[in-house]
Amino acid sequence: MDYAAYFAANRESQLNELKEWVSIPSISAQSEHKQDVNRAAEWLAEALARAGLEHVAIHPTAGHPIVYADHLHAPGKPTVLVYGHYDVQPVDPLHLWQTPPFEPDIRDGKLYARGATDDKGQLFIHIKAIEAILRQEGALPVNIKVCIEGEEEISSANLYPFLQANKELLAADAVLISDTELLAPGQPAICTGLRGLCSMDIAVRTAKTDLHSGSYGGGVPNALHALVTLLDSLHEPDGRIAVAGFYEDVPELSAEMKAELAKKGVDEEGIRERLELDALFGEAGYTYAERVGARPTLEINGMYGGFQGEGTKTVIPCEAHAKITCRLVGRQNPQDILDKIERHLRLHTPPGAKVSLVQREKGNPFTIEPSVPVLQKAADAYEHVYGVRPVFTKDGGSIPIVEAFARELTAPVVLMGFGLPTENLHAPNEHFHLENFDKGLLTIVTFLRRLA
Amino acid sequence: MDYAAYFAANRESQLNELKEWVSIPSISAQSEHKQDVNRAAEWLAEALARAGLEHVAIHPTAGHPIVYADHLHAPGKPTVLVYGHYDVQPVDPLHLWQTPPFEPDIRDGKLYARGATDDKGQLFIHIKAIEAILRQEGALPVNIKVCIEGEEEISSANLYPFLQANKELLAADAVLISDTELLAPGQPAICTGLRGLCSMDIAVRTAKTDLHSGSYGGGVPNALHALVTLLDSLHEPDGRIAVAGFYEDVPELSAEMKAELAKKGVDEEGIRERLELDALFGEAGYTYAERVGARPTLEINGMYGGFQGEGTKTVIPCEAHAKITCRLVGRQNPQDILDKIERHLRLHTPPGAKVSLVQREKGNPFTIEPSVPVLQKAADAYEHVYGVRPVFTKDGGSIPIVEAFARELTAPVVLMGFGLPTENLHAPNEHFHLENFDKGLLTIVTFLRRLA
Repeated sequence: MDYAAYFAANRESQLNELKEWVSIPSISAQSEHKQDVNRAAEWLAEALARAGLEHVAIHPTAGHPIVYADHLHAPGKPTVLVYGHYDVQPVDPLHLWQTPPFEPDIRDGKLYARGATDDKGQLFIHIKAIEAILRQEGALPVNIKVCIEGEEEISSANLYPFLQANKELLAADAVLISDTELLAPGQPAICTGLRGLCSMDIAVRTAKTDLHSGSYGGGVPNALHALVTLLDSLHEPDGRIAVAGFYEDVPELSAEMKAELAKKGVDEEGIRERLELDALFGEAGYTYAERVGARPTLEINGMYGGFQGEGTKTVIPCEAHAKITCRLVGRQNPQDILDKIERHLRLHTPPGAKVSLVQREKGNPFTIEPSVPVLQKAADAYEHVYGVRPVFTKDGGSIPIVEAFARELTAPVVLMGFGLPTENLHAPNEHFHLENFDKGLLTIVTFLRRLA
Repeated sequence: MDYAAYFAANRESQLNELKEWVSIPSISAQSEHKQDVNRAAEWLAEALARAGLEHVAIHPTAGHPIVYADHLHAPGKPTVLVYGHYDVQPVDPLHLWQTPPFEPDIRDGKLYARGATDDKGQLFIHIKAIEAILRQEGALPVNIKVCIEGEEEISSANLYPFLQANKELLAADAVLISDTELLAPGQPAICTGLRGLCSMDIAVRTAKTDLHSGSYGGGVPNALHALVTLLDSLHEPDGRIAVAGFYEDVPELSAEMKAELAKKGVDEEGIRERLELDALFGEAGYTYAERVGARPTLEINGMYGGFQGEGTKTVIPCEAHAKITCRLVGRQNPQDILDKIERHLRLHTPPGAKVSLVQREKGNPFTIEPSVPVLQKAADAYEHVYGVRPVFTKDGGSIPIVEAFARELTAPVVLMGFGLPTENLHAPNEHFHLENFDKGLLTIVTFLRRLA
């Protein structure tokens, strides 16, 4: 049976398996889901064993476990390390989901569920491609190692030490990851750059207790005023980040790079309309594609303080909180950037306010040259299945461990995504176009066979 | 039996009654407490009847009910209208309460409970003073009307139309209110000025959904950034409010007024230490007493948006919310101020953000001359019980209906408070010093008898 016929025959049972997996709420950021994260790891380990992989092991860490498996029976052939993650993002605001995030639903050829595209659905392609080759041919054309973590959405804190401690176990000639996007329906893309990431929690404290704005209003600091002033000081009105030295290690965009980004043919007006925005907004002097693909950011991801209930409360809040993240590019170092932000916030703290900061995630930016041979083979595989040659893009997102894989294993990392930019990852109604699930299976089979 | 002996003999049973009342969570701002608010009104009506008042009636309104009662058997004597409120503020942050807000607890001579001082405890003084005179003398020295609302903490929206529609029912020679403060332990005060109040909800919307900061970060507006910019634009760094025309109807402080406020002898360093603040903060060019007593304010009371849970979420939030209130002085008009803020916010809205505003409360500032005879009689009563003559003060708080009573009934309003500035009203661990409950009973009995 050819592979297209094989996958068609097994489609329903494979999708039912995937639905089972995405129904497990493995939200790594929320401790109440600790058991669900473990369940998702166990489910994954069983699926890897069913696929025919060997040495399946769940490695406990200080956080969520890492699942390893391999199939090393192709002597003289290259070894491919498949990486992915079985953890998912939180789901709020829950009321905006059309169907519950952990009750997977297939509508209009799309699978709706948290994790459908990021990353369970995409990772599942690899498992089923490997299973298919083993069932069809009884052997794999290359050596395969699989290393799947449960902390990608919270910055892979425990994968990095695992990687350092297990360089031999994980040693490979290439790392294969599907956690990025096609450029558009029918147009594949290979990602040659990812932004780095760092994050910080900010807390502001003023008086020892909330105060009545009648008795004290006008005479005492307000924690929300102080937080608003601090946060507003982080950007210039033209969108530039106002933290001293923030852009120090950001290379100026070369004419070549600008041309490459322009080739993506981003439809700014289309994006604006689809998001129902009055206007796009970003750093002055750059196009949308440049801002998202090759420039760093500083975003406030959440904020709260004072009275948030119904009605009015005439209170002067004594505490206020915010969460920020930065996307990094070029030679920006996450620790250095967090230190610069910290310095900025301490300098700008208004009278009467005390600021406390917690530095959280730290991931370096990643970049690779399109001319690397394994990337060209990946491009051939895409072209074989999609009928068009993929473009080489820079992605605005971050997979903090990618740069670490490349550095520690001195192996090229192949980012072959099958998601779409419109699939609401990290937002309500996340989904995965099953057309790309189908084509993804064939693409990965083709890629692994051509690597041999 | 003299009154001191009478109140001593009845103290325990009266406090038990009061504890029963403050245990009812009559939070007017929260619709889930609608039934509790009704229960508090019913409890009050029964207490008024028990005290010997007549024509006790619970008047339904579009919101929470108004409780009326009277005792009009002193022909030729003045009529006093007692006003107060049986609703209370919300209780969050709940975790900062040492004992639950609706499980009243007496410690160190203080009653701890939401509403203990604002205003159930203070209002209860009037009920028990009237009851005492009726039981001791069989008649009242003046005519008494009682009008108690359940919406003071949400700006008396329904009391104002009730007042306009029932001017004859409520007609009086003086209005008596205990919802303000002594200057300090042992030093009574009569309030001759209250700040006005207005409030507004602000909502910012950007994209139609939350977005992933990897895919979109740098290229689209962030609702929290827009809100932070808007809110920060409302103040100058020196504490002045930056809204055009905000100070137009604020009279400059006269030398006389400054001297009167200075007489309060506010211990700025003591306040700073008690609140555990690094520094006090307020409008440049004014003392603490001037800022709180005679200058207008604009405070952010609450704010929320984006991810507020544990950990990190790399999201660009599409909505963000804030609640603000202003304290007004002089001839500032709440509607005019809200309109000016609205204009300011529309002018300062950053690109890509849509702002929606809901105007809420609107109460005028109030002022009265200390020389008014009924205020001098109130001063005599205080002096008789506390041994010192009260000072005449301006209070930074707002009782929006006070100005309306004075205007609609053309009657002087006597603000005789028995609370203390340290009693955490509107904050966790609200309490009431029972020493002032005891002295308050005697002061009100003395005042009513001297009015005759």
